[in-house]
Amino acid sequence: MRMYDIIDKKRTKNKLTKEEIHFLVDGFTKGEIPDYQMSAFLMAVCLNGMDKEETVEMTLAMAHSGDMLDLSPIRGVKVDKHSTGGVGDKTTLVIGAMVAALGIPVAKMSGRGLGHTGGTIDKLESIPGFNTSISTEKFFDDVNRLKFAVAGQTADLAPADKKIYALRDVTATVSSLPLIASSIMSKKLASGADVIVLDVKTGSGAFMKTIKDSFALASAMVEIGNGAGRKTYGVVTDMNQPLGRAVGNTLEVIEAINALKGDAPEDLMEDALVLGQYMVYGTGHAKTPEEAREMLEKTIEDGSALKKFAEMVEAQGGDPSYIYDTDKFEKAAYVEEILSPKEGFVRSIKTDDVGIASLILGGGREKKEDVIDHAVGLIIEKKIGDPVKKGEPLAVIHANDRDKLEAAKERLILAYEIGEKPDKLPMHVYGVVSDGKILFEDQWVREQAATGNEIRFEG
Amino acid sequence: MRMYDIIDKKRTKNKLTKEEIHFLVDGFTKGEIPDYQMSAFLMAVCLNGMDKEETVEMTLAMAHSGDMLDLSPIRGVKVDKHSTGGVGDKTTLVIGAMVAALGIPVAKMSGRGLGHTGGTIDKLESIPGFNTSISTEKFFDDVNRLKFAVAGQTADLAPADKKIYALRDVTATVSSLPLIASSIMSKKLASGADVIVLDVKTGSGAFMKTIKDSFALASAMVEIGNGAGRKTYGVVTDMNQPLGRAVGNTLEVIEAINALKGDAPEDLMEDALVLGQYMVYGTGHAKTPEEAREMLEKTIEDGSALKKFAEMVEAQGGDPSYIYDTDKFEKAAYVEEILSPKEGFVRSIKTDDVGIASLILGGGREKKEDVIDHAVGLIIEKKIGDPVKKGEPLAVIHANDRDKLEAAKERLILAYEIGEKPDKLPMHVYGVVSDGKILFEDQWVREQAATGNEIRFEG
Repeated sequence: MRMYDIIDKKRTKNKLTKEEIHFLVDGFTKGEIPDYQMSAFLMAVCLNGMDKEETVEMTLAMAHSGDMLDLSPIRGVKVDKHSTGGVGDKTTLVIGAMVAALGIPVAKMSGRGLGHTGGTIDKLESIPGFNTSISTEKFFDDVNRLKFAVAGQTADLAPADKKIYALRDVTATVSSLPLIASSIMSKKLASGADVIVLDVKTGSGAFMKTIKDSFALASAMVEIGNGAGRKTYGVVTDMNQPLGRAVGNTLEVIEAINALKGDAPEDLMEDALVLGQYMVYGTGHAKTPEEAREMLEKTIEDGSALKKFAEMVEAQGGDPSYIYDTDKFEKAAYVEEILSPKEGFVRSIKTDDVGIASLILGGGREKKEDVIDHAVGLIIEKKIGDPVKKGEPLAVIHANDRDKLEAAKERLILAYEIGEKPDKLPMHVYGVVSDGKILFEDQWVREQAATGNEIRFEG
Repeated sequence: MRMYDIIDKKRTKNKLTKEEIHFLVDGFTKGEIPDYQMSAFLMAVCLNGMDKEETVEMTLAMAHSGDMLDLSPIRGVKVDKHSTGGVGDKTTLVIGAMVAALGIPVAKMSGRGLGHTGGTIDKLESIPGFNTSISTEKFFDDVNRLKFAVAGQTADLAPADKKIYALRDVTATVSSLPLIASSIMSKKLASGADVIVLDVKTGSGAFMKTIKDSFALASAMVEIGNGAGRKTYGVVTDMNQPLGRAVGNTLEVIEAINALKGDAPEDLMEDALVLGQYMVYGTGHAKTPEEAREMLEKTIEDGSALKKFAEMVEAQGGDPSYIYDTDKFEKAAYVEEILSPKEGFVRSIKTDDVGIASLILGGGREKKEDVIDHAVGLIIEKKIGDPVKKGEPLAVIHANDRDKLEAAKERLILAYEIGEKPDKLPMHVYGVVSDGKILFEDQWVREQAATGNEIRFEG
C-alpha cells in the first residue's frame, strides 16, 4: 500500500477502503507518512469529501491511535456530553448535577485548552479548595458513590487527531465536515462512554455559523457515533449570543449554582434540559425524552440537583458553603457598566467579540501557559430583542486591571448592534438528531436546514 | 501576505492575484514556504483549477525563478520546438536541418533527462566525434554562421518548476492541466526563443491519452506562450504507436538521415512538415503555413537539408562521412526478429511497452547516472493496420546482451495486439492551435476534442 495511491484515489473521488484509511492514519501518526503527503490528502478530502463509512473508519483509526479509556470500573451505563463550544457555556455544571441526582453516573473528564474562558475544570477551580487532579481510583470511587466527579484529562487521547489538526490548521483544510466530525468524535470514542450527547452550537459565536451546517455536523457526528456502536444524540442549540448572562469562570459558576436553585436564564435551562433529557433517555432511565425532562425538572424543584453539586464539590476538596452562599466568591476589583449609546432594540451581538472581551480581561487562555483570573468576566444585561434606553446598561464588566477593562469595554460596545425595530429572535434549541431521525423544532428551522440560507442573526 | 490565505482562496475557488502567485512561487523556491503548504495548494489547484491569467502568472513566476537565457547574440527571429515526448520521436533532427536550410536560425539546447531513449543530444552522440559540450560563444557563432547548432543545457532553467514538480510527483498532483502547461512553458519561456512550436503527443504512448486532453493542453500552452509575448503554436500529433519505425539512439539518427535523403516513414515526415511549417511561418519567413510547407519540401528535394545536417555535425566535431554512408554506424551484437504468433491485422501497439523494451536493452536512462548504449533499440516492421502473416516479423531487436534481448522480446511481443479485422487507423496530425483558433484536421477529430470520448486506439 502506498500513500501516493491513496491520495490519488481521493483526488479522483473514489472511496477509500478501511485498510487504506487505517494505513494513512497510523502511518502519519508514526511519522512514516510525511506532512506534505498528508496535507495533499486533507485538501483532497476538503474538496471531494468522504462518505459515512470512510468517516467512521477515519474516526475509529484516530480514536485507536492513543489511549482508549476503560470506564468499566464505573457501574451502570456511562454517558458523556460534549459541546462544540461557545461563549458563556456552563451547561455541563448544571446538567451534570441534575443527571447525577437521578442516580445516573456522570464521569466528566475535561482538558483545559485555550479559549475565551476556561474549560469546565477551570471554572470549578473558582471554588476554593476544589481539586481536579484526583487519582483514577478516587475518580471511579466518587462516581460510583456520588454518581458525579470532574477530573482533569491526563490520558493521551487520539494523538492522531492532534497531529492531523495541527497540519489542517496551517494548510487551510479545517473546513471539511467529515474532518471536523471525525476530529471531535475520535476523542469522544476514546473517552469510553456508552452514550454520547452532543451540543452542536450554531450562529455567530459558533464554529458552525449556519443552521444548515450545524445540522449537517450534528448528523455526521451522530452517524459516526452510532456507526462505532455508541448511542449518540446531537442537539443543535443557539450561539448567536452568549448562553445565559455570565461569561467568566467565577461568574459562570455562580450562574450555574443559581440555575440549580431554580433561578436560571431561560436559554441556559432549556439547553440543559434538552441535553439532559437525551442523557437520561439514552441511558435507559426514562421511556421517552419527555419523561426524562420531567424527571430532570424535579431535581431542581426538590433541591436534589443542588445538593448533588455540593456533595461533588465537597468530595473533591471544595468548600460547599460557597454553593449555598455565592456572595462568598471573591469579586473582581473593578465592576463597571457599559451603557447603551442610543435607544432601540438589541438586534445582534457579535458573540465572538464578547468572548474576546473575556479573554482580554484574563478570563481565558491564549497560550497554554497563561494563568486564568477566575474573578473577571462580564454579565450580559441586554440580550437580542431586548428594548434598551440611551444610557441603560448593556453589560457589566468585572475586571482586575484598568487597562484591560478599557480594552474589553471598547470591544464590547462594538459587539452590540442597536436598531430601531426588534428583529427575529434566535431560538434556544433548533432541533435534535436522534435515533436516525432529525426532529426540527419547527417548520422554519426545517426550511433553514434544507435550503441552507445563511441565517446568522446579524441584523 | 500569508500562504495560508492563498491556499484558502484557491480551496474556495477564488482567483489569485499576480502578487499572490509570485509570492507563493518565490517563497517556495527560496524554501520559505514549507512543502506541506505547497502540496495542499497544489491539490486545491488540481481540483479547483486556475484560469488563463493565473496560469500565465504562475508560468512567468517559475520561468523567472532561475536563469533567463539571452539569445540576442543570434541574429534574426529565434524559434524553438518542443515535444511533450513519445517513443521514436526523432523529429527535431529532421526539422532542425530543414528549417536551418531555409536560413532560419535553429539554436537547440537540450537536456539529457530520463526516458526510453536518450534525448536529442544523446542521439547525436551516436555520431563518432560529435560534441554537444560546446562553449556558449561557439554555440552562438555556429548558429549565426550555419543557422544550426545543438548543445547540452547547462543553465539553471526554472528551478521553481523542478522543485514543484518533485513535490507533485509524490503527492498525486501531476494531473492538472494548468500545472502541466505551466511546468512545460516555464522552461520554454526561460529558454529565450521568440517563437515556440509545441508538438503535443496524444495516445497510448503519450502523457495525454485522449484527443480532448491533448487539445486542451495544446490550447493552454499556446495561451500561456502568447500571454507571455511569445508567438506560440501547438500541433497535436499521434503517439498511439512509435513515430516512424526506429526506436533507439543510432537507429533513430539513421532514420532521420534517411528522411533528409527523402526516404522517410510517412508519419515522421508529416510530423516534421507540420511542425516545421509553423516554425517557418511563425518567424515570418513565409506568408502562409502552406507556402512554408512547400519551402520545407524543397529542402529535401534539393538536398539542402541533408547538407545542412552534415555541416552542423562537422562543425561540432562529428564525422560527416557517417551521414552520407550510414552503414558505417556501429551495429549491435545481436539482431533478432520478433515473429507474429498469428495471422491478422495489427490492431494496437502498447507504445509505452515498446519504450520500456528500448529501456531494457540499454537505450535510455532510468537513473541520471545510467550510461546509454547507442547501438541498441528496435525497428518496428508492422504498424497499426498492417496485415501480418503467422511467422512474419513484427519488429527487429538490436541488442548487445542476450538476457536483455530476451527480456525486451518478451515485452515487445505482448505490446502487439493482432486481430482478425483492421481497425480505424490513427491519424498522423490531429490539428493545430494557431493564432487563437483551433484547426482540426477533420470533423471526427473536432468531435473527439469536444465530446472527450476516450479514444485510445487500443482495439
